[in-house]
Amino acid sequence: MTRQELAEQIFKKGSFLCVGLDTDIEKLPACVKSEKDPVFEFNKRIIDATLPYAVAYKPNLAFYEAMGPAGWESLQKTMEYLPKDVFTIADAKRGDIGNTSGLYARAFFRYFNFDSVTVAPYMGSDSVKPFLAFENKWVILLALTSNAGAFDFQTQELHNGKTLYQQVMETSTQWGTAENLMFVLGATKTEYLAAIRKEYPDYFFLVPGVGAQGGDLAAVAQAALNKQGGLLVNSSRNILYAGNGDDFDQKAAKEAAKLALEMKELLTLYSA
Amino acid sequence: MTRQELAEQIFKKGSFLCVGLDTDIEKLPACVKSEKDPVFEFNKRIIDATLPYAVAYKPNLAFYEAMGPAGWESLQKTMEYLPKDVFTIADAKRGDIGNTSGLYARAFFRYFNFDSVTVAPYMGSDSVKPFLAFENKWVILLALTSNAGAFDFQTQELHNGKTLYQQVMETSTQWGTAENLMFVLGATKTEYLAAIRKEYPDYFFLVPGVGAQGGDLAAVAQAALNKQGGLLVNSSRNILYAGNGDDFDQKAAKEAAKLALEMKELLTLYSA
Repeated sequence: MTRQELAEQIFKKGSFLCVGLDTDIEKLPACVKSEKDPVFEFNKRIIDATLPYAVAYKPNLAFYEAMGPAGWESLQKTMEYLPKDVFTIADAKRGDIGNTSGLYARAFFRYFNFDSVTVAPYMGSDSVKPFLAFENKWVILLALTSNAGAFDFQTQELHNGKTLYQQVMETSTQWGTAENLMFVLGATKTEYLAAIRKEYPDYFFLVPGVGAQGGDLAAVAQAALNKQGGLLVNSSRNILYAGNGDDFDQKAAKEAAKLALEMKELLTLYSA
Repeated sequence: MTRQELAEQIFKKGSFLCVGLDTDIEKLPACVKSEKDPVFEFNKRIIDATLPYAVAYKPNLAFYEAMGPAGWESLQKTMEYLPKDVFTIADAKRGDIGNTSGLYARAFFRYFNFDSVTVAPYMGSDSVKPFLAFENKWVILLALTSNAGAFDFQTQELHNGKTLYQQVMETSTQWGTAENLMFVLGATKTEYLAAIRKEYPDYFFLVPGVGAQGGDLAAVAQAALNKQGGLLVNSSRNILYAGNGDDFDQKAAKEAAKLALEMKELLTLYSA
């Protein structure tokens, strides 16, 4: 999916919501547990229910890997089920030496047909560039993450006065462009977001951490929406586990609708 | 496996060789291609042939993920096939927010029963600690990697005068100990290794990059062997693809034996 197509989806749906498909087999409602593939069945109902409100879906690979080969089959079915006009993110946080990153890229872009993969920057250029070599596919590079550990290294100041995450953003924008590179910026770090947006007016940001992790949607939107939307805000647990009865999908839809309604207003306010 | 047990294996076999099971389905010899699970069949014969010379085996997850669910089955069979007295490394380079890292840890330590996982440090403490919570299991943290991109961020100097990889080592040794934490240090960076060993006399280092990537085994050993061995030197392509006929496993054994012979001498010289 191109940046233009993603922007169109955002304004068409009036939403920049990404639903995190962090499907934990231990948290599934009883009504799907008897299905042959409970994880896929759960995802399918979540997708059906939230599709009017979401422009992106982001399975976190850890949840699928934890189930072994069966998890990969659930993921594959989920990817085949998702309609082509939503943006898909493999939240995998991969990164390895060049030929190995190329294999990960093939796995996510060709085998599963994801639009994008989250990538860790620590190993530098040749660990990231193989992911950027696929047409109309995206790298979403970890910059400033939503967790407490972000302060261990990402915010460390380098001798040139920049913090590590600033250096990561500056260096990586020499490898990719706003057409194939996005950044992960945690919603719990809103005090940084406005300055980052000023420096990178055109790039899309993937912002996790709204909801369970405590981030504030309005503050994120005010700081970082741009004319193309320029934001994907992720919510996982708050949507997936809003209910655990037979109507879990309707509860999920209600949560997604609430976020999308707020997003519509925020788009009108800050994305004019 | 404990540090003591690993050291015992090293001196028993007179080798600190790790065989990287980077099994690329496109490079397999014709004689295994007709097997039901060619990747497992290849691994099995490589393991049988190299077992006298190797103390550790390290499948790189990318190679298995690139094959979808079938790859995970090949990996699972490979792990079940490996004897209990070799040290196993999931070269996965994972790292995510706390609860998610916990799931990756469960996948590799419980589902596949690996002894260790390579972990990327960028997301900090809560992304690494869940892996350290498993008894007799290891984190092998990326510090200074063997690829060219290592110079993009890892060797950047911080305002406190340390480089990023030095800071990663200093900070992470507050989370783990020499009993459950190792570091990845590339064989192509031997000029750094002696100084690192001086600062961290007890920690094990996993050193990739000998062979195809150009690292020098004798220089690595001189710089970094300690009284427990303290090193695992990985070789992948040079061993796996030493031959591509019916006798590929014997060719692999020959390469492994050559390395092990050199290692035995180096252990006598530098690990007294």
